[in-house]
Amino acid sequence: MSTEHLFAVVMAGGSGTRFWPLSRRLKPKQLLALAEPERTLLASTVERVAPLVPTERVLVVTGHHLAEGTRMALPSLPPINVLAEPIAKNTAPCVAWAAYHALARDPDAVLAVLAADHFVIDGAAYLEVIRRAVTAAADGSLVTVGIKPSRPETGYGYLEVGGEVGPGFSHTVLRFVEKPDAVRAIEFVQSGRFLWNSGQFFFRADAIVRAFEQHMPELARAMGGVRHAPSRAEEMRVVDAAYAGAASISIDHGIMEKAERVRVIPGDFGWSDVGSWTTAWELAKKDDAGNAGTAAFVDARGNFVHAPSGKVVAMLGVSDLVVVDTPDALLVMPRERAQDVRAIVDALKGKRDDVL
Amino acid sequence: MSTEHLFAVVMAGGSGTRFWPLSRRLKPKQLLALAEPERTLLASTVERVAPLVPTERVLVVTGHHLAEGTRMALPSLPPINVLAEPIAKNTAPCVAWAAYHALARDPDAVLAVLAADHFVIDGAAYLEVIRRAVTAAADGSLVTVGIKPSRPETGYGYLEVGGEVGPGFSHTVLRFVEKPDAVRAIEFVQSGRFLWNSGQFFFRADAIVRAFEQHMPELARAMGGVRHAPSRAEEMRVVDAAYAGAASISIDHGIMEKAERVRVIPGDFGWSDVGSWTTAWELAKKDDAGNAGTAAFVDARGNFVHAPSGKVVAMLGVSDLVVVDTPDALLVMPRERAQDVRAIVDALKGKRDDVL
Repeated sequence: MSTEHLFAVVMAGGSGTRFWPLSRRLKPKQLLALAEPERTLLASTVERVAPLVPTERVLVVTGHHLAEGTRMALPSLPPINVLAEPIAKNTAPCVAWAAYHALARDPDAVLAVLAADHFVIDGAAYLEVIRRAVTAAADGSLVTVGIKPSRPETGYGYLEVGGEVGPGFSHTVLRFVEKPDAVRAIEFVQSGRFLWNSGQFFFRADAIVRAFEQHMPELARAMGGVRHAPSRAEEMRVVDAAYAGAASISIDHGIMEKAERVRVIPGDFGWSDVGSWTTAWELAKKDDAGNAGTAAFVDARGNFVHAPSGKVVAMLGVSDLVVVDTPDALLVMPRERAQDVRAIVDALKGKRDDVL
Repeated sequence: MSTEHLFAVVMAGGSGTRFWPLSRRLKPKQLLALAEPERTLLASTVERVAPLVPTERVLVVTGHHLAEGTRMALPSLPPINVLAEPIAKNTAPCVAWAAYHALARDPDAVLAVLAADHFVIDGAAYLEVIRRAVTAAADGSLVTVGIKPSRPETGYGYLEVGGEVGPGFSHTVLRFVEKPDAVRAIEFVQSGRFLWNSGQFFFRADAIVRAFEQHMPELARAMGGVRHAPSRAEEMRVVDAAYAGAASISIDHGIMEKAERVRVIPGDFGWSDVGSWTTAWELAKKDDAGNAGTAAFVDARGNFVHAPSGKVVAMLGVSDLVVVDTPDALLVMPRERAQDVRAIVDALKGKRDDVL
């Protein structure tokens, strides 16, 4: 497999709510060091694929308000490789822009579309899966990576996999399934025919462009000018207009669920979408009592503490709490309530926007 | 009753452990606004007796390291009225110094010895009790104030009261009892013959000096020179020597338990020693769910939050917690563990003295 035409397209948007108060509007999840000390999820994402993709061919698509923070988090990335969206319109316009942009640089470009804010434990196994996905994409297939489910997770979407095994050990995708309820999730896992949808995609740029032309022709028409724009300023005029008119729709719904020749590579490399503070606790190093973070733990079990460096946090006689402290906001909740942080953020909107 | 000779002696020492991390070595409990917004317990204590004692006759005995903070908390107090102890030796040397000091100012001085860090709800009833205590002290009695117990509290000492009623509706004290266990506390309360020892004392300065001469003659001899010291510098030479040689003993043990003519005035004015964060929660204004403090409470009950002004604290799905935040230290514990804060402070000694 050759990777000389491989571009990484890192999708780095995000509203910064699930990890409040650490995450903020200007500092969403991918700009936080949630899984490894002193290393943002975004930096980990780029470094993870570095053996296959040099930073010259890494494109990071993010919100315009996040462009500066993104460049600061990736000092070795050419600044021009940050594609700053004028407005958030979910992932379909994002992928379309990146595809036309990559085609302008290299007519044989192959895209690895990656989430900026996921975590992978086994980097070597991950790279091997990417190699297989790129190989499978060579014939024009749209390839996704499905994760072997380790539990009946209701927080992920699933892919139903066909039996046929093609090049690069890929499978056909029978259907995409939204986040299931607990009963269906158990069925999915027991059937052995379902994988978690990891939201990573691999395709030739010309193949996904053809798919856009077929399934989202208005977007393709509006964004096509990117390919021939003589400057970034000209490119942004095309992009601004395309985003203004674009529907807000995911690449899953807009393309993958409708396209032919969609294939999946099963992967098993210790993957997490780092979906909440609970996941951050699961990924963190813990003491014998299950506490994670730097604190004085006394009669305390299963807690997760995140606080500014040097601050003394004393956790006395408490269990299974998440405590996240920042200079201007402090969150205390049970670990099991991590998915409800959004409710706090919503409650503060319009009242204390200074801490959002 | 005349109060023109009445001096308030406010005992304002303290190690600053029980209310950590808000209290510190240089900011113990009496310098915190624990019962009323924006008003230290020390300031409340002085203001509470202001109708009877102008600040010219208020003496505040405190540690030398606390002198500056004490003067700042009481801007209307003549700075010379802060008696800064060279070393902490419990309350007997403190009262002895104050007694000789007051005698030097007024041979007919009467002392109201008060704790700096208690709280009183009914100020008018409190003043009436003080008037009775001062009246009872006119004949040379050593008078204490006992609180009608509202519950079998094991955190207070008790006074067993005799039947004889003397001047100012005072009773004889049969004995002082240390903090009892739960069984005895219930017996005490049911008997109707016991009052809480509030640690407040009223006596003529010459009467307590005679008691020191009789029961703690070495201390009396060492401190006696205070009465004739021509300057504060001379007074401090006497005091330094007296404290250096003094035993560390309370006025209760050293004098009150041994003296004759000890009397008690029963009081019922909503008294609290503000002994822990739990008490602070009990005294605080609470919302319908029993939460006290400024925070975004969501599905939260019975919590107490103290945080820097302007900081957003979000309490999501938690109950009966104490959360105390400061710029350099944060404490999270169940309300019922409030008495164990000292364990945290002990654990931090020698490691993080900067936050103690």
